[in-house]
Amino acid sequence: MYSSPPALEKLVQELSKLPSIGRKTARRLAFHLISGDREKMEDLANSILNAKNRLVHCTRCYGISESEICQICESTHRDSELLCVVERASDILPFENSGAYKGFYFVLGGVLSPLDGIKPETLHIPELVERIEKENVKELILALGSSPEAESTALYIDRRLANLPCKRTKLARGIPVGSELEFIDDVTMLRAFEERVRV
Amino acid sequence: MYSSPPALEKLVQELSKLPSIGRKTARRLAFHLISGDREKMEDLANSILNAKNRLVHCTRCYGISESEICQICESTHRDSELLCVVERASDILPFENSGAYKGFYFVLGGVLSPLDGIKPETLHIPELVERIEKENVKELILALGSSPEAESTALYIDRRLANLPCKRTKLARGIPVGSELEFIDDVTMLRAFEERVRV
Repeated sequence: MYSSPPALEKLVQELSKLPSIGRKTARRLAFHLISGDREKMEDLANSILNAKNRLVHCTRCYGISESEICQICESTHRDSELLCVVERASDILPFENSGAYKGFYFVLGGVLSPLDGIKPETLHIPELVERIEKENVKELILALGSSPEAESTALYIDRRLANLPCKRTKLARGIPVGSELEFIDDVTMLRAFEERVRV
Repeated sequence: MYSSPPALEKLVQELSKLPSIGRKTARRLAFHLISGDREKMEDLANSILNAKNRLVHCTRCYGISESEICQICESTHRDSELLCVVERASDILPFENSGAYKGFYFVLGGVLSPLDGIKPETLHIPELVERIEKENVKELILALGSSPEAESTALYIDRRLANLPCKRTKLARGIPVGSELEFIDDVTMLRAFEERVRV
């Protein structure tokens, strides 16, 4: 019985551990890599090792950073009265790209899910509460997802902060800009209708 | 203006060079890697470097191998009268998996495309002709694709070997096993009809 060379087999196996990369795609990627310029393989491997060694979590917002405190947390041009809570570090970029937000961020690291053992202490909720108690945060924007877990996490944080003067807001939900009405899913349509605003 | 940490940016850039991986997917993969077990990043990087350093082209069939002559070419249990010509090294596995073929392989390395500067000498066509002249190959199976370039490459090889006693065959084209007729594309249907066989 024929089997691929071990080094090829191992590469396919490692690539197929990536999300949304199945075995067939992994094989295609592996063959693409070994059929092309071999120096490029080294570039890719080095960029992975470099990322592994250099990237850390910012000790203030838990975003991804190359230094103890990230570029955003270190900025003096931002509005310290605004704090935006997101699930994952990758959720920061869309805010920054929109250019609409000039406050700071706080990465929870997930959402509450008691059945999976994810409690407030598993996430950075105690650190968040402490930060709001200590600092002059006027508005906390809860930019979490729309899964039941994310909704209840937002609710939990809202309650934990009920006695503090910090206002809690969440992102508007509705029809995405540029979308055709006929392609909007039912739940989004319901929310867009329920939360309609005056013209 | 905010920009991601350089090590993260570089990783996204390298990942997005992979085929069918756009910038958004590359970002998702990068965040998956740095959010998970960091040791796994090392495993992936090492598997890439290992593949880069160990994998070579077999000097006999031009397939992927860890030794000068690959496992298939070294086998003494195969039928040396059969030679199957494929475009890429990755085309060998489906044959091996089918279990139907017990001959040897020859990887062309592409198909002829004069406009892109791909001539017979750019591929391994001279080496193929030489091998057939020297060795006792009774049947050459031209298992190339169905693009116009692949078809004309098969035709070119067929003509180059016209004076040799080696029979040239190609794979049957038709309805894939298990397919519903209503989902078959027009060209496949045409070929399946034209090349119909007696029951």
